[in-house]
Amino acid sequence: MWNLFLPPSEHDTDDYRGAGLTNLEYALCAEEMGRVGFASEAFNCSAPDTGNMEVLHRYGTSEQKARWLKPLMDGEIRSAFLMTEPDVASSDATNIQTSIRRDGDEYVINGRKWWSSGAGDPRCKIAILMGKTDTEAAAHQQQSQILVPLDTPGVEIVRMLPVFGYDGAPHGHAEIVLRDVRVPVANLILGEGRGFEIAQGRLGPGRIHHCMRAIGAAERAIEKMAERLMSRVAFGKRLADQSVWEQRLGEARLDIEMTRLLCLKAADMMDKAGNKTARQEIAMIKVAAPRTALRVLDHAMQAHGAGGLSDDFGLAEVYAGMRALRIADGPDEVHLRTIARMEFGKFGERMAEWRSKQAQ
Amino acid sequence: MWNLFLPPSEHDTDDYRGAGLTNLEYALCAEEMGRVGFASEAFNCSAPDTGNMEVLHRYGTSEQKARWLKPLMDGEIRSAFLMTEPDVASSDATNIQTSIRRDGDEYVINGRKWWSSGAGDPRCKIAILMGKTDTEAAAHQQQSQILVPLDTPGVEIVRMLPVFGYDGAPHGHAEIVLRDVRVPVANLILGEGRGFEIAQGRLGPGRIHHCMRAIGAAERAIEKMAERLMSRVAFGKRLADQSVWEQRLGEARLDIEMTRLLCLKAADMMDKAGNKTARQEIAMIKVAAPRTALRVLDHAMQAHGAGGLSDDFGLAEVYAGMRALRIADGPDEVHLRTIARMEFGKFGERMAEWRSKQAQ
Amino acid sequence: MWNLFLPPSEHDTDDYRGAGLTNLEYALCAEEMGRVGFASEAFNCSAPDTGNMEVLHRYGTSEQKARWLKPLMDGEIRSAFLMTEPDVASSDATNIQTSIRRDGDEYVINGRKWWSSGAGDPRCKIAILMGKTDTEAAAHQQQSQILVPLDTPGVEIVRMLPVFGYDGAPHGHAEIVLRDVRVPVANLILGEGRGFEIAQGRLGPGRIHHCMRAIGAAERAIEKMAERLMSRVAFGKRLADQSVWEQRLGEARLDIEMTRLLCLKAADMMDKAGNKTARQEIAMIKVAAPRTALRVLDHAMQAHGAGGLSDDFGLAEVYAGMRALRIADGPDEVHLRTIARMEFGKFGERMAEWRSKQAQ
Amino acid sequence: MWNLFLPPSEHDTDDYRGAGLTNLEYALCAEEMGRVGFASEAFNCSAPDTGNMEVLHRYGTSEQKARWLKPLMDGEIRSAFLMTEPDVASSDATNIQTSIRRDGDEYVINGRKWWSSGAGDPRCKIAILMGKTDTEAAAHQQQSQILVPLDTPGVEIVRMLPVFGYDGAPHGHAEIVLRDVRVPVANLILGEGRGFEIAQGRLGPGRIHHCMRAIGAAERAIEKMAERLMSRVAFGKRLADQSVWEQRLGEARLDIEMTRLLCLKAADMMDKAGNKTARQEIAMIKVAAPRTALRVLDHAMQAHGAGGLSDDFGLAEVYAGMRALRIADGPDEVHLRTIARMEFGKFGERMAEWRSKQAQ
Repeated sequence: MWNLFLPPSEHDTDDYRGAGLTNLEYALCAEEMGRVGFASEAFNCSAPDTGNMEVLHRYGTSEQKARWLKPLMDGEIRSAFLMTEPDVASSDATNIQTSIRRDGDEYVINGRKWWSSGAGDPRCKIAILMGKTDTEAAAHQQQSQILVPLDTPGVEIVRMLPVFGYDGAPHGHAEIVLRDVRVPVANLILGEGRGFEIAQGRLGPGRIHHCMRAIGAAERAIEKMAERLMSRVAFGKRLADQSVWEQRLGEARLDIEMTRLLCLKAADMMDKAGNKTARQEIAMIKVAAPRTALRVLDHAMQAHGAGGLSDDFGLAEVYAGMRALRIADGPDEVHLRTIARMEFGKFGERMAEWRSKQAQ
Repeated sequence: MWNLFLPPSEHDTDDYRGAGLTNLEYALCAEEMGRVGFASEAFNCSAPDTGNMEVLHRYGTSEQKARWLKPLMDGEIRSAFLMTEPDVASSDATNIQTSIRRDGDEYVINGRKWWSSGAGDPRCKIAILMGKTDTEAAAHQQQSQILVPLDTPGVEIVRMLPVFGYDGAPHGHAEIVLRDVRVPVANLILGEGRGFEIAQGRLGPGRIHHCMRAIGAAERAIEKMAERLMSRVAFGKRLADQSVWEQRLGEARLDIEMTRLLCLKAADMMDKAGNKTARQEIAMIKVAAPRTALRVLDHAMQAHGAGGLSDDFGLAEVYAGMRALRIADGPDEVHLRTIARMEFGKFGERMAEWRSKQAQ
Repeated sequence: MWNLFLPPSEHDTDDYRGAGLTNLEYALCAEEMGRVGFASEAFNCSAPDTGNMEVLHRYGTSEQKARWLKPLMDGEIRSAFLMTEPDVASSDATNIQTSIRRDGDEYVINGRKWWSSGAGDPRCKIAILMGKTDTEAAAHQQQSQILVPLDTPGVEIVRMLPVFGYDGAPHGHAEIVLRDVRVPVANLILGEGRGFEIAQGRLGPGRIHHCMRAIGAAERAIEKMAERLMSRVAFGKRLADQSVWEQRLGEARLDIEMTRLLCLKAADMMDKAGNKTARQEIAMIKVAAPRTALRVLDHAMQAHGAGGLSDDFGLAEVYAGMRALRIADGPDEVHLRTIARMEFGKFGERMAEWRSKQAQ
Repeated sequence: MWNLFLPPSEHDTDDYRGAGLTNLEYALCAEEMGRVGFASEAFNCSAPDTGNMEVLHRYGTSEQKARWLKPLMDGEIRSAFLMTEPDVASSDATNIQTSIRRDGDEYVINGRKWWSSGAGDPRCKIAILMGKTDTEAAAHQQQSQILVPLDTPGVEIVRMLPVFGYDGAPHGHAEIVLRDVRVPVANLILGEGRGFEIAQGRLGPGRIHHCMRAIGAAERAIEKMAERLMSRVAFGKRLADQSVWEQRLGEARLDIEMTRLLCLKAADMMDKAGNKTARQEIAMIKVAAPRTALRVLDHAMQAHGAGGLSDDFGLAEVYAGMRALRIADGPDEVHLRTIARMEFGKFGERMAEWRSKQAQ
């Protein structure tokens, strides 16, 4: 029951191998983990470690694997992913400004990152950072990803950011300044200019995980809502007997079922046809799952009265996390844009003409 | 390519057998048929004939089958289903008031029905009517279903009802008055008081058909929307390049994918576990599919400007039909209530206690 | 009780003068008229005659007034407004392509118009047409408005367009082809290139009228809904006692009250500070009023069951008209864009800088 | 600039008098105060002190006024209102269980209250508590309101409740246990069984205050959103130039304008026709204002990216407060029910018949 998240792949070796579950099988596990906040970590399946391990498993050198992937897969250390920046709209990743400048045998890193999740944990030792090695290259070849040990001089955790009023300790979301941070050139992953390529490979499975956890959270909320509605009386009737709540509970079940099916389809497509083929489906679940969870949670909170907003029923904190998920890994707007562009793309030649005009 | 809708079953005989498709297989056909208005009839798969043939196939006597099922399956005649009444809330079928009174070897029928779809077609020869044989019995055992040839004296088609101005000719939606209509006792289906039991068996497949046709209609609408958005320029840009339309097209694709998966799941459950097991799923798709289609159609109409509301693009008429589907076969509110009650039911004993109090 | 719509203005003369109501006063009348379909015409207050009369009253020459304004104000003839074209996105009025070419003492008009409301009425004798006199001028100075008697050779009503399935006879929505239609130069209104200027002046009052009629229609729908809910029983309770309908009726009342207040504010601003000052408010009501009416009507139809979609309760036809209003006089998207741009504009200098960059 | 909230009334005396603003005038002040979190207290206009002062001003004895109203109006002490209970659905105030039992010259109070706002402030010295003096009386005459000094033996603040992780210190929301708490009979307000009567008088103005502050908060959010949209670039364009954000900003402005007008109408009705006449309007704004604020805040957060969920832009904390306002002073569902019942009530006799059947 360990490293369940890592599907069988061509990159498996005797030393580095997950539990052998397909994306589809793991999706069902992720739903269960999503019901309880700390469950993912108990199975070494929590973000951003999962994505970081996938990247190292797929693209890491033997040295990178031995130094960082091994202790991550053993659960001895934790990791962070340094992507988003406070000064630019990071929803468009070409905006990222942190510089990674080659200087002899080292890269020198300067920039400011935030929402670096997990960096608050004392066990967090390593980060994968996205930055620009070449601001003159084509828009999607300027970025690279590089390993930055958190104890490197120049790395400063400025503060931890709250989500609504929750600090998420010890995991947390850090703002980190990097000032002339020097790491060996061997810390670069895959090669200069290949940051986007790595990001593409990384994103699929992580989105399945997030979305299925969201569904688990929604399932837990619907249970709490139903229990509450059956136990409270207002105006002479149980809330469960009032048709406005019937409608909402019915809608909640409907939303959850549809969203789960789409997540499972996306996972199955990834298993059978590859992450790239499943791209539109992955974009769709990234929009659908947090939204469904938020809708169910909001009704569940309302059913609990003011108590639903406190920590007594565990709803408001999950709501805060789901609200963050509408932004993390790309805001809804970007994913809907991706879906739409693929839809327009189906019209082929007419579309080709349209894009050529657009580029002018 | 005929009678595709009738799944293999224990009721099959050499004389009465469908094309052999499962509900799941037929669901995919129904989606394709939904793209074009007249397609269902071309394959002898149009409502309400399909439901009526299912009822006769499952519950009809040899004589009933020879007299009515045969010509229906051969496409020689058409049929109507007389359920809804103008004077009561038919969403609660226990309200139905048409009386079916035994008088010697005949039943005498009196009542007023409306929204009897298909009765306007000159080829429509037979109706299945739901009415009360016993107003003293338990609430769900008062109703019976009976075969009423449309040329029986006392059957009067009062008028055809429009849906948003569309008369749906020749098919149409009829208001029918029945005054001392006499039919032989052999016309009763299955037995007195078994009207609800027949209705339960009837509803599952028909809902899959309706819902998958709705998805086909939504697919056709999304195509038209995408084409229009790529071909029109406003304020210096194609509509397809304006992010508000990207968001709507993305949402439309997302809605359709989720709804289709739920319909297919429901169809597959019916094939593998029976209509009864799939009851919550069937209620869910009955709510989800017309709603998705309406949302997509509304955006598609808006993308077409005023033309979208005329007959030029075939969107408004389909919208009218989908709006009717939110009411036909039970309004959304009733299906959401069903979903909610099954959800509450999962809580078992506590629920048992609640229902016992409710009954007091 | 005649020509109530025309507010007192500097353009009033003894011959041409309305009933003396302010926009605010007339708004309240328009709400009442909106409750019943034919009421506006009974007071000579129906579109597009009202807008056409306003234009002639404000910008017409003595000859134009004597020839056309007089019989319009006397209710002897009716008129049409020829703006929208089938071949371009008319939401951006700069797209309009109909040509108005000077040839000696005449203008020669060629083009195709549709959604020319009222042109189906045999009493309709005159149209105001928007077209381009100069395709080389600045974007907003290419258009002119001109008077075109409908019996001019070359004017052909090709067909009447339905809205959903309603043809709106005798009023109707026409598609009109103009082939080498010649009118005297004296028919031009205000001057070449001033079409947009006229359109601006025209739009404010007409939007108030449309929106207040929409509110009247919504009020009528809420009454019908409440009556229906009190008179129907399902599952052992009147619909009025089921909380889902309480919520919807409550929401409907809330929506209507807020929308009416905004319309009245807009009317009052027009009276006290002029149409231009009220521009953001006018854009807001144009979005809000049809939307509110559609929401209320949709719930009212659902409360009426299938009957709500027929002609028995007068809901579906009004729905169709309100849906058209989300497009007529500019679609929602254009008005929301106007509102947003004025909002951004409040930030002054920063905005000035932004627009200058935008223009580059 | 002090005690602005207290409108001129028959209860004014030389000693106890507000600033003389009408409800309408104060509403506009409350909007301004709503823009900044601490503003209300700076003008001695913060809840629940305002409501408590109103109650004492209107219903207090001379002794009660001298002892508690004086220092409250002078801003020397703060107060709490003990209404909601954790063990029952307090949305139906007849459910409240805290007992107030007469014992000689004292009342003995036992119960558990929560969401007692302001009780965390060290300056908070007095509470008004709602409880039952007679569980045998008619449903709305069982409750009484009584003054309970917070230092009375038996009053224990058990804990402070967070709202979405925010503790709201020092103000805070307390859970309070009362065990055999004894206060003199002179502490009872107005008389036994008059708790509901007091509650009715209390609620109107407080709702105006809350709602106008909500509008102020929404205005602040729309400003922040507009600024952000103009300052961020993604995919080659400022967010402000992307039509999806135009639509949202337009919708936000529309929502705010309509909601403000309804609040001002309600305030004006209270001034001119009394709180009771304005009851439906007050219920409407209680639903509309938090909802509008939440919608605007949610879009504003999304426009700010992940930063919008932290404390950097002050949006998430305000969102949490507005979400609480959908429950405080009665959840949306109760207010919509009130609106609907008044709407049904307009139908008069038919309604009378319906209620009589309902009561059976």
